Amino acid sequence: MHIKDMSRETSLSLLGHMRLGHIACTRGLQPYVTPFSFAYHDGYLYSFGTVGKKIDWMRANPLVSVEVEHIVSVDEWQTVVVAGHFEELDDSPATSEVRAVAHDLLAVNADWWQPGYVKTLSSSQERPLSPVYFRIAIDEISGHEGVAD
Amino acid sequence: MHIKDMSRETSLSLLGHMRLGHIACTRGLQPYVTPFSFAYHDGYLYSFGTVGKKIDWMRANPLVSVEVEHIVSVDEWQTVVVAGHFEELDDSPATSEVRAVAHDLLAVNADWWQPGYVKTLSSSQERPLSPVYFRIAIDEISGHEGVAD
Repeated sequence: MHIKDMSRETSLSLLGHMRLGHIACTRGLQPYVTPFSFAYHDGYLYSFGTVGKKIDWMRANPLVSVEVEHIVSVDEWQTVVVAGHFEELDDSPATSEVRAVAHDLLAVNADWWQPGYVKTLSSSQERPLSPVYFRIAIDEISGHEGVAD
Repeated sequence: MHIKDMSRETSLSLLGHMRLGHIACTRGLQPYVTPFSFAYHDGYLYSFGTVGKKIDWMRANPLVSVEVEHIVSVDEWQTVVVAGHFEELDDSPATSEVRAVAHDLLAVNADWWQPGYVKTLSSSQERPLSPVYFRIAIDEISGHEGVAD
C-alpha cells in the first residue's frame, strides 16, 4: 500500500457521501472527541445534538476538528480531516432559513445512528431532548487515501 | 433503540478487542482528530507513528481524547471515550522494557491499517520513517451502547 493526498474536491466529495464522523472540541488544554452524524452541504457540515458536554464546549470555544473515514479494506481507505468552527443555528429569525436547510438535510436517513434523539435511560438523569441545531464551517480540509500496490 | 451507560470493565474490554480508534490532541484553542491504531494493555493504549502534526502536538500538550467504536448496526453499537495523556517511549534505558511491550503488542496484526509505516508518496517531501513509540495513559473512561428495543 502507499498513501496519496486527496484533492480538495475529492475530500469534499467523501464528506458528501458519508453521514457519520468524529468531532473533537477543546476546553483549556483538554480535547474531547466523540462520534457525530452530519450532512454536508455547500461548505458546511450540518448536525444537531442535545445540550451536553460537546455543545457546552463548542459554545465556549467554537474551534473544532472533524474526521470522516471510509474504510474498504486494510489497503483501500480514505480519510478526511477538517479544521472548522461551530455555528449554532438558534431560533432567531436570522437563522430560520439555515435551520430549515439543516432540518431537511438531517431528515434524510434520520434513522441512522442518531443518539441526539435518544434519552439515556440508565443514567439517573434524563437528558433534555430539545435539539440544538448547528453547523461546522470548513476552514481547512485535507484528505489521504490508501491505495493497494 | 435506547442508550445505556457501559461499565468501566465493559468499556476496557471493548478497547481490548479493537485495534482502530480516533485520537484528538490540542494546540492552543484548536483541536485535531485523526485515526490511529493501538493495542490496549493494562491501562494503556500502545501505539506508534512518525514525527508529524499529531506527535508534535502531543509532545507540546500531552492531554488527549481517544474514541473507539464498534458498530454492528443502527441500533446495536458501542462507543468508548477516554481522557488520557501521552507518554513517549523513547530510546532511554528507563523505557526499554515498556518499548519491548509496545513492540510485541503492535507486532500482532501489524498489517492492519498502519499508515505510520508508510511513506506518503504523492507529497513533495517524504516523511521520516523512524517510528515514535508512545502510549496513552487512561485517566478517565466512559462508554455508551445502543440497544435495540
